[in-house]
Amino acid sequence: MSYTASVVGGSGFTGGELLRLLAGHPEFELEQATSRSKTRKTVGHVHPNLRGLDLRFSSPEDLADVDVLFSAAPHGVAMGEIDRYREAAETVVDLSADFRLSEETQYETWYDGHTRPELLAESVYALPELGRERLAGADLVAAGGCNATATILGLLPLFEADLLSGDERVVVDVKVGSSEGGAGGADAASHPERSGVVRPYAPTGHRHEAEIAEFLGLDVAFTAHAVDMTRGAAATCHVFPDGPVSTSALWGAYRDTYAEEPFVETVAGGGGVYRYPEPKAVAGTNRAEVGFELDPGSERVVALAAIDNMMKGSAGQAVHAANIALGIEETTGLDFAGLHPVGAP
Amino acid sequence: MSYTASVVGGSGFTGGELLRLLAGHPEFELEQATSRSKTRKTVGHVHPNLRGLDLRFSSPEDLADVDVLFSAAPHGVAMGEIDRYREAAETVVDLSADFRLSEETQYETWYDGHTRPELLAESVYALPELGRERLAGADLVAAGGCNATATILGLLPLFEADLLSGDERVVVDVKVGSSEGGAGGADAASHPERSGVVRPYAPTGHRHEAEIAEFLGLDVAFTAHAVDMTRGAAATCHVFPDGPVSTSALWGAYRDTYAEEPFVETVAGGGGVYRYPEPKAVAGTNRAEVGFELDPGSERVVALAAIDNMMKGSAGQAVHAANIALGIEETTGLDFAGLHPVGAP
Amino acid sequence: MSYTASVVGGSGFTGGELLRLLAGHPEFELEQATSRSKTRKTVGHVHPNLRGLDLRFSSPEDLADVDVLFSAAPHGVAMGEIDRYREAAETVVDLSADFRLSEETQYETWYDGHTRPELLAESVYALPELGRERLAGADLVAAGGCNATATILGLLPLFEADLLSGDERVVVDVKVGSSEGGAGGADAASHPERSGVVRPYAPTGHRHEAEIAEFLGLDVAFTAHAVDMTRGAAATCHVFPDGPVSTSALWGAYRDTYAEEPFVETVAGGGGVYRYPEPKAVAGTNRAEVGFELDPGSERVVALAAIDNMMKGSAGQAVHAANIALGIEETTGLDFAGLHPVGAP
Amino acid sequence: MSYTASVVGGSGFTGGELLRLLAGHPEFELEQATSRSKTRKTVGHVHPNLRGLDLRFSSPEDLADVDVLFSAAPHGVAMGEIDRYREAAETVVDLSADFRLSEETQYETWYDGHTRPELLAESVYALPELGRERLAGADLVAAGGCNATATILGLLPLFEADLLSGDERVVVDVKVGSSEGGAGGADAASHPERSGVVRPYAPTGHRHEAEIAEFLGLDVAFTAHAVDMTRGAAATCHVFPDGPVSTSALWGAYRDTYAEEPFVETVAGGGGVYRYPEPKAVAGTNRAEVGFELDPGSERVVALAAIDNMMKGSAGQAVHAANIALGIEETTGLDFAGLHPVGAP
Repeated sequence: MSYTASVVGGSGFTGGELLRLLAGHPEFELEQATSRSKTRKTVGHVHPNLRGLDLRFSSPEDLADVDVLFSAAPHGVAMGEIDRYREAAETVVDLSADFRLSEETQYETWYDGHTRPELLAESVYALPELGRERLAGADLVAAGGCNATATILGLLPLFEADLLSGDERVVVDVKVGSSEGGAGGADAASHPERSGVVRPYAPTGHRHEAEIAEFLGLDVAFTAHAVDMTRGAAATCHVFPDGPVSTSALWGAYRDTYAEEPFVETVAGGGGVYRYPEPKAVAGTNRAEVGFELDPGSERVVALAAIDNMMKGSAGQAVHAANIALGIEETTGLDFAGLHPVGAP
Repeated sequence: MSYTASVVGGSGFTGGELLRLLAGHPEFELEQATSRSKTRKTVGHVHPNLRGLDLRFSSPEDLADVDVLFSAAPHGVAMGEIDRYREAAETVVDLSADFRLSEETQYETWYDGHTRPELLAESVYALPELGRERLAGADLVAAGGCNATATILGLLPLFEADLLSGDERVVVDVKVGSSEGGAGGADAASHPERSGVVRPYAPTGHRHEAEIAEFLGLDVAFTAHAVDMTRGAAATCHVFPDGPVSTSALWGAYRDTYAEEPFVETVAGGGGVYRYPEPKAVAGTNRAEVGFELDPGSERVVALAAIDNMMKGSAGQAVHAANIALGIEETTGLDFAGLHPVGAP
Repeated sequence: MSYTASVVGGSGFTGGELLRLLAGHPEFELEQATSRSKTRKTVGHVHPNLRGLDLRFSSPEDLADVDVLFSAAPHGVAMGEIDRYREAAETVVDLSADFRLSEETQYETWYDGHTRPELLAESVYALPELGRERLAGADLVAAGGCNATATILGLLPLFEADLLSGDERVVVDVKVGSSEGGAGGADAASHPERSGVVRPYAPTGHRHEAEIAEFLGLDVAFTAHAVDMTRGAAATCHVFPDGPVSTSALWGAYRDTYAEEPFVETVAGGGGVYRYPEPKAVAGTNRAEVGFELDPGSERVVALAAIDNMMKGSAGQAVHAANIALGIEETTGLDFAGLHPVGAP
Repeated sequence: MSYTASVVGGSGFTGGELLRLLAGHPEFELEQATSRSKTRKTVGHVHPNLRGLDLRFSSPEDLADVDVLFSAAPHGVAMGEIDRYREAAETVVDLSADFRLSEETQYETWYDGHTRPELLAESVYALPELGRERLAGADLVAAGGCNATATILGLLPLFEADLLSGDERVVVDVKVGSSEGGAGGADAASHPERSGVVRPYAPTGHRHEAEIAEFLGLDVAFTAHAVDMTRGAAATCHVFPDGPVSTSALWGAYRDTYAEEPFVETVAGGGGVYRYPEPKAVAGTNRAEVGFELDPGSERVVALAAIDNMMKGSAGQAVHAANIALGIEETTGLDFAGLHPVGAP
């Protein structure tokens, strides 16, 4: 193992995913997992899939010196702790929104402001498919948001093929699983209230609009619904290009954009049960499925993307980015293929 | 009991709902339920909730003389059987698409043509909220489609308040339960493949676009997803009005349209867990929840509607229409309030 | 309407069911619903199915004078409030365990003791199928527990037919939905942790053993599992009778016990999809399905029962008992047949 | 890669799991997957998680020569094809019941008889925890049944510690997911009918009683219920030992039996959300969770076990057995830890 690693905020859902990935990663040695609420409990006490792991949560006050520190703390924590993080580790990968956007004003608009705006220029947004060059050697990495990741991956080929310029009206209708709410949660997250829902939890004003605008260059009309699954985010993007588009042009666009990408697969029609991107087909994996359908009647392209919000939309993406930052082969530790059949993962 | 009734196609899902509603309706006496595949089986053999009903399926070849015949047969059957239906009953309520649209050409475009186009002018589309006047005394009634019903109810107030003219681009993103596929079904409908999905089953080209165009006067860009519930249809309509719209104007529009409607409730923000329309809140009922949210950032109105596809979207709507057609108080037999909590109904 | 009624603890799950049933009951006029945490909120704020009800929660400090008070407060509340309840109403129906058992010592063993043990002899246990005579005219009624109700209904015919004497070893393996945990709930009740489970939440030592012992006269070996549904309790009772038993003797036993019961249906084999009792077939109803299978190989009778824990196991049973206590036709207000198909209700 | 491998019946659910495991296994090279119904389709056409695999189904008529052939065909196929299988491969691992039991008479009692009874003495039952010695070098291996595996693993420590002799009455109440029914399936397997169930699908007479009797030496009273998950089998075993048992004796028994087992974990009480074995905690993995609770009141031990029926109960167990048979380190290719949180996997 080449690098030591730690996870801050290891008792949350994305923290648990990081622990799972790092424990099975041949190039990382997991040194520490912190949790304020579960200090001294075993990791397996919280995450039953990690019962075999001989590790207890320690206090976030005592950070071990490691090569890479992953922070899975809630939004707003990392910007306060960043000096301690960087003292403890040469490379910091933050999974919150704290270092994703480039302008302080965006944090004032969408979050509660920023206490370390001078670092925003330094941090690198970790959606490797948008450009992995900047990630190589990066020492402050900000993993992308789950809904933004799905949206960007679904729409990116349309930009790269000049089928979208950025001025068009695009509606993004997202469906997400309950893990996006994190561990704990109030009444609305309880099983009797949350199961079986199609619940518009953010009909307008979702914060990920900011990431999409910055990294894709497109103001989208975004709506998010909670549906009955635990993991997963599916973005349905309704796009009205300026001129006519053909199916073969769309196939070309997706192929050109993703042919070399190890974690993106295009699924668009064809036979069988799974004809378009579906979150359950990628649950537990770092894969994204993207696809499209052309609607001649309404001059519309329906661009689709499905990811596991905890993996490609969070912890998996963070490990992917760390691999690139450190010069490790980028798919290392991220090869789980997913399950079939699987219920509501 | 004032009227005798029969149900053709009683072993299907909507047929079962009709049987349940008619058996509990104080003004109908249920005389016959037909089923080709289940002839001579008890109704309760197929529909476990109706085990208390002393009725066996008879062959659709032998139609009893009744006052009202409800047909829950698949698309294409009623147009072939309509003469026999009308011989057996003075009032026919068809739950298929066979008599919904007014032009033969629409059937050629969206279905497999029509064998009795001369009846299209005669039949009355049964979405009472669109105008119950034509339903009074009607003897050929066509119950609306589930997804069309949800969409029309969600958007209608915008038209009535002149916030929509019909020329705007409107995206309708619908999420539906597995009962829309009907009983039986192929591999894709099996529990292991179907559970937990967010599956774009009709990304484009859904037939209900035709109903929406005809009865709302709007060409919508329509996409339907299957999600993990059995009952329910939720329509999220993304609307970009020409000029500025205020929340109070929206409240006014919904109030004006639905204040007197017994089966429509406006839910738009506020506190608690259920802030917007949700299909699970109306499961088993003939109620529709409608609502909206204003997105100033993208100059968008998000109009929402949720129904039980088997009730307000099918059997409940059919009984509602029959009540009106026959001059029965229109809410009769449709007063089930729904359940809380309920899982994935 | 003949009787006025109130519900104490109306913002909980069973409180909501009571409100729904009483609002639709032709012989009750719902006067008051109390809630400590939701005082002044509308009933529909908490229970979306009751948005049409023009009623706000009032404080439990101010009880209206009514004919019947239903208490849906947690265990331990009613014994403290009973004098105020009885001052406010001539008939009190308590849905907690506070007045179910007859001996103070049982409360010391299974609960936290009892502060008003002198009332235990006076209260009437409300499982009408066990004997409705004592309920007529009762003014302190204790609705039975959900798991006890399912178990007792499944096993009762074996006692009545002398196939069980009470000395046999009987294993009762129960599967329940998440509403049994009530509103709110801790981490284990959150959707991501609770969905998809088969979780032995009470492998041994469940309190309902006490009710079963008292009212059925049988010490059972009881285990409860949480499974993925919101409503429902299914009891599988493994019984080893002393001598040989035939299927026809079993059919006779169930028929003799339940032939006249309006809310119990025997389902045992036969064809179709629903061959044995299933909770989803009775969701939302006051019906119990009971049934059995004979296992010659292991000299075992498998006795089965399925109910909706919120209805036949709680609020429905309470209304049923109140109907009997007050001399109302006993099925009044309890005629909802349930839905087919229905997902995980 | 040291060994070539093929999968017969690769388009079924367990066939797909085998393909996934073998494709990711460092010691196997996957040469062939056969499917009668999907010949020439890509593996990813059926199993969306395997879209990255460059392999098409070939006809089962043309078996490639390989080192190990895995057969995931339905019961009854392998006994007819066994000569062809053994001609194609030196080692055959069959996942059906065809070679599990040792006596022809058992097949006459529980299945449709056996056409090659002379091979029964030769085949080795593949539950490694029961004795991995016989598996080493075996060339005809019969992977154990899922429900039998869960039951045997839950009860084995009681035998090994002499807390069970085999004469006691033991009730085994099993809850399983929908994948046990295999791909396709009739009405009862369709999502609307199957979702949300607690369905006693085999109240008595389940075939796995035969395996349990043979390999554990115990006649159990077995009942299986379908519940709402896709993967998973949970066995709750109600045991009444002859004499008194202590919790520490139980801990000792489970520890002694499983301390060295790489795929079995004992979970019995303690804190947190996951206190007892749960199928969702092991979904996708080859792990079994086992545990127990002592019920002094009814002199009962509740022994619990949870597995993924497709993995530890089928394909994972088959690969585990093949590893042992071929002398590969036995956990190779089976190290996926599982996911947390996960819904209804």
